[in-house]
Amino acid sequence: MRRRTHEVVNVASPDDDLSRLFDVSVIVLVAGNILAVILESVESLADAYAPLFGAFEAVSVAVFSAELVLRVWVAAEETGDGRSVLSRRLRYLASPMAIADMLAIAPFYLASFFSLDLRFLRFLRLLRVMKLTRYSPALSVFRDVLRAQRGAFLSAFTVLVLMMTFASSAMYVVEHEAQPEAFSSIPAAMWWAVATLTTVGYGDVTPITTLGKLMASSIMIVGIGMVALPTSILASGFTEQHRRRRLTLELEADRALEDGVFDDTEADRYLRHATALGVDPEEAEQIVEIAVRDVVIPMPDDVTACPHCGKDVREV
Amino acid sequence: MRRRTHEVVNVASPDDDLSRLFDVSVIVLVAGNILAVILESVESLADAYAPLFGAFEAVSVAVFSAELVLRVWVAAEETGDGRSVLSRRLRYLASPMAIADMLAIAPFYLASFFSLDLRFLRFLRLLRVMKLTRYSPALSVFRDVLRAQRGAFLSAFTVLVLMMTFASSAMYVVEHEAQPEAFSSIPAAMWWAVATLTTVGYGDVTPITTLGKLMASSIMIVGIGMVALPTSILASGFTEQHRRRRLTLELEADRALEDGVFDDTEADRYLRHATALGVDPEEAEQIVEIAVRDVVIPMPDDVTACPHCGKDVREV
Amino acid sequence: MRRRTHEVVNVASPDDDLSRLFDVSVIVLVAGNILAVILESVESLADAYAPLFGAFEAVSVAVFSAELVLRVWVAAEETGDGRSVLSRRLRYLASPMAIADMLAIAPFYLASFFSLDLRFLRFLRLLRVMKLTRYSPALSVFRDVLRAQRGAFLSAFTVLVLMMTFASSAMYVVEHEAQPEAFSSIPAAMWWAVATLTTVGYGDVTPITTLGKLMASSIMIVGIGMVALPTSILASGFTEQHRRRRLTLELEADRALEDGVFDDTEADRYLRHATALGVDPEEAEQIVEIAVRDVVIPMPDDVTACPHCGKDVREV
Amino acid sequence: MRRRTHEVVNVASPDDDLSRLFDVSVIVLVAGNILAVILESVESLADAYAPLFGAFEAVSVAVFSAELVLRVWVAAEETGDGRSVLSRRLRYLASPMAIADMLAIAPFYLASFFSLDLRFLRFLRLLRVMKLTRYSPALSVFRDVLRAQRGAFLSAFTVLVLMMTFASSAMYVVEHEAQPEAFSSIPAAMWWAVATLTTVGYGDVTPITTLGKLMASSIMIVGIGMVALPTSILASGFTEQHRRRRLTLELEADRALEDGVFDDTEADRYLRHATALGVDPEEAEQIVEIAVRDVVIPMPDDVTACPHCGKDVREV
Repeated sequence: MRRRTHEVVNVASPDDDLSRLFDVSVIVLVAGNILAVILESVESLADAYAPLFGAFEAVSVAVFSAELVLRVWVAAEETGDGRSVLSRRLRYLASPMAIADMLAIAPFYLASFFSLDLRFLRFLRLLRVMKLTRYSPALSVFRDVLRAQRGAFLSAFTVLVLMMTFASSAMYVVEHEAQPEAFSSIPAAMWWAVATLTTVGYGDVTPITTLGKLMASSIMIVGIGMVALPTSILASGFTEQHRRRRLTLELEADRALEDGVFDDTEADRYLRHATALGVDPEEAEQIVEIAVRDVVIPMPDDVTACPHCGKDVREV
Repeated sequence: MRRRTHEVVNVASPDDDLSRLFDVSVIVLVAGNILAVILESVESLADAYAPLFGAFEAVSVAVFSAELVLRVWVAAEETGDGRSVLSRRLRYLASPMAIADMLAIAPFYLASFFSLDLRFLRFLRLLRVMKLTRYSPALSVFRDVLRAQRGAFLSAFTVLVLMMTFASSAMYVVEHEAQPEAFSSIPAAMWWAVATLTTVGYGDVTPITTLGKLMASSIMIVGIGMVALPTSILASGFTEQHRRRRLTLELEADRALEDGVFDDTEADRYLRHATALGVDPEEAEQIVEIAVRDVVIPMPDDVTACPHCGKDVREV
Repeated sequence: MRRRTHEVVNVASPDDDLSRLFDVSVIVLVAGNILAVILESVESLADAYAPLFGAFEAVSVAVFSAELVLRVWVAAEETGDGRSVLSRRLRYLASPMAIADMLAIAPFYLASFFSLDLRFLRFLRLLRVMKLTRYSPALSVFRDVLRAQRGAFLSAFTVLVLMMTFASSAMYVVEHEAQPEAFSSIPAAMWWAVATLTTVGYGDVTPITTLGKLMASSIMIVGIGMVALPTSILASGFTEQHRRRRLTLELEADRALEDGVFDDTEADRYLRHATALGVDPEEAEQIVEIAVRDVVIPMPDDVTACPHCGKDVREV
Repeated sequence: MRRRTHEVVNVASPDDDLSRLFDVSVIVLVAGNILAVILESVESLADAYAPLFGAFEAVSVAVFSAELVLRVWVAAEETGDGRSVLSRRLRYLASPMAIADMLAIAPFYLASFFSLDLRFLRFLRLLRVMKLTRYSPALSVFRDVLRAQRGAFLSAFTVLVLMMTFASSAMYVVEHEAQPEAFSSIPAAMWWAVATLTTVGYGDVTPITTLGKLMASSIMIVGIGMVALPTSILASGFTEQHRRRRLTLELEADRALEDGVFDDTEADRYLRHATALGVDPEEAEQIVEIAVRDVVIPMPDDVTACPHCGKDVREV
């Protein structure tokens, strides 16, 4: 019974209809919640449909609370090497996912019980979107790339921060006299620096002195680099990811072909693996073709004993 | 007769002059139509040359109507496994291409028969540009890349939407007090969020509070990522596409060389294939060079006869 | 004598000092000219140093005229399969380079002889920069990449144009009522479309209606794609270029190693080739290492006759 | 004693706690200094905490001076092939790092001794951030990529400068009449050109004439290329870097496998090398897998003794 619930509330296996239904309804409800938060921010709508919004919120919180309780309950089914049922549940409660879930429903209870309504608190509801990450395998590639390249991104970020410090300091020195309010201090100048280095360029603050414009020009050109850096890191990251997944398949194909043939069970396992890695079938097929090409048919002279006279074919 | 027409109206084979003529004239006429729509929107021109525009439109519609009828007629030539002529024609009428064609001429008839002229309806004429896609093989690479990477793009889009929701909610909370009109609601704040995350940065709406500027700064930096994501996906997609086409040629070269030689017919087929794949000749040649290098010349010691009894050591 | 001049005026071989001197002085003079054009556009400077600018221009034109004459003279040295000296010179005069040179000095003569001074004509002087392209081998990689990817760029450009047409038409329809002057016609709306799709976003024209903002938002998101497309094409182009040059070296290394050794003359030729291809030495070395690794040391059993008794080692 | 200090002040080996402590405290102090410079630029804070800032600056200068002296002292430990101790120290003093250190503390002494306080001089303190580069191996990949691609970047920069010259000249000619102040000269127009070609697009200066807008539109489209160029160069640079590091590992794996086995010491050295190259373990493992797959097991028929006379067929 509890095991079954565990299967249902967690990510669906393609052939478990009940579980799929559960997932879909959660996704729909979350989407509805996000929409509600957005629409409720429109005064006219908020006033017109206040009760409706309230009801929807109440229902959502009820459902999500139930879901949370359920998840805590089935947490006992998690593989927790020799841990007690309680400790497994506590561990689940301490997981980022569970915390996000709790924060997302907390405001409602705070507001209703202690009747305190911190306006911005209500936006914690947006955390409900976190639930969706459970269902987006598509995001896994990004996560892998980011993890693999985190070192590069860290340095890119360091470079960015240093540049912004230098840029804003320089502009502060140059433009402070001419525009005492816009460039009142380095932090103030930083607002300009960020908008410029990211090439957003609002234009609400721009240099007016000649020296300032000269300096700004070079900063803008550096700005191109600021955009180029993460893009390049990401691009080569994606290429690498793809390359590696491809190699993984090549190795599997080679193993499957060690006996010279690529039988149905091998082909089946191979294709499932390809789909799991997000390599499209056409390419997966090509990989096999290449592997087949490179198969070495055992040389006759590996035979050391003549099958006819039994003597060793190498010695006389 | 009908078969011939079918050849003519559909994309030309290089050596079919009549068909090429047909294609070129359609392309020219479509370009003319787009230009007409653009110019007609200039009041002064519209008033000055009203009759001219009218005439050109009438002629175009006439031609395009004729073309449509023709296409429906020859649709019977389409390979439609055992379908009746009528069903094939209906299937063609239901194709996106045909629908675009019909929508593109519909406004004219609506306007003339029911003399109702919905201004914006006239822009349906722009759909005529869709005809061009029939003639742009160059776009096929893009289509392939987009199809191969659609998963990645979908997740990128999801990330974009979530970020915009968070960004606009955050800015709404922070700036609502200071700028009640610009940040009147989350949907309103979204206008700012889009302009910022895409690094367009009009500057018609900008944060004015310190907290708002802090938040906006981090959103801008994220904006760089927003630009980086699709670029990287696309870049690695193009690289992959190229790589795969290259491999396809390598495999073909290897097959051609199985007998140790690369004769003229093989070379000819190979080059045609390379052009079809958009791999330039210089590279295609290099691929062959590599394949030739890797050809294995049979070793002299592939002895197959036992030196003692002379029988073949491979058969028992 | 003429042959020598030909050597001198054309791109230098590293060990020809006179020729190098000639090149450097041309580059310096051209740079000076560009600077002069820029500075002369500053009224105050133009007034203050009018005679100086005049003199510099006169000298420059004199030098460039002499250079042109010289080039025409030595054009006779060009390899012109059996063409007459005159025809070779005329052919040179018709070359884009020569035309640029002539256009770049023409204004001066027009102004002095017919004393007509078309202000903008003076900017033809900027064409003198074209001379520099003679000396920038560094740009050759770009040229190669652009040539190899021209198909992709053409389609990207087509996509761009179509998008701009659709975007500006859409915005014209939506915003025309609200902003009759900014969106007075499709061509006018195009100014907004270009600034938006390129993510420049001046903000001098922005949508004000809700529908307009919605449409603009989606156009901005497409704008990210507009930036992504050429970048991706270029990026994969560079990667391909590099890959191909690498392969060329690999093939050469393999040929050099066919005899099992990589002697000095081979090494020397190889390294010169690597430098010519712009592959840096470290990488070139690595390529050789790999080639060496794959060398197959001839198997003793390729020997068919025993060097001691002379009998065939395979037969008994 | 001096040797020990040398170890301590220079970059830490993971197991040298004292050295690590030294590094960390320097990093923290530098970060504190940057923060101080930024905060001190805020008038209110500067007035309120003047003594605090003063004290912190004095302490920092004291520490950094001591550090500098220390580094000069231990410079004697540097490997300076047969140089005298003095010359080694002078060489260190002449190193960019030491100069940056000196410039970073100079303002303080200038201000206190000669009681002259050049406002902008105080920003030389930001140079203290240079110390950090000692501790950021993560930046080494960037440096390698930039070095490997410097040729490409140089040409990209040349292209950029030429484009800006042409763009600003063209706009000056076209817009000068309509906007005599914004486009007063080519240098003035350059401010617009930079903001546009980098897609920053402040919008403080925009063309107003139709011709100007036409020209600006094409310049903006070129601007996309301006952003695309460095990104592509960098992207392919990163991909290449990764590729090369991978190949280095492949070669090492092959060498290790020459004897057919991959023993622990080999595995250990290999993994250390992989970490040093920044190739993540998972990938390093894959590389070995591939190397193992390609190991050639010696063929049985590698007969080396003549079956007739028994002598070795390889020696004569």
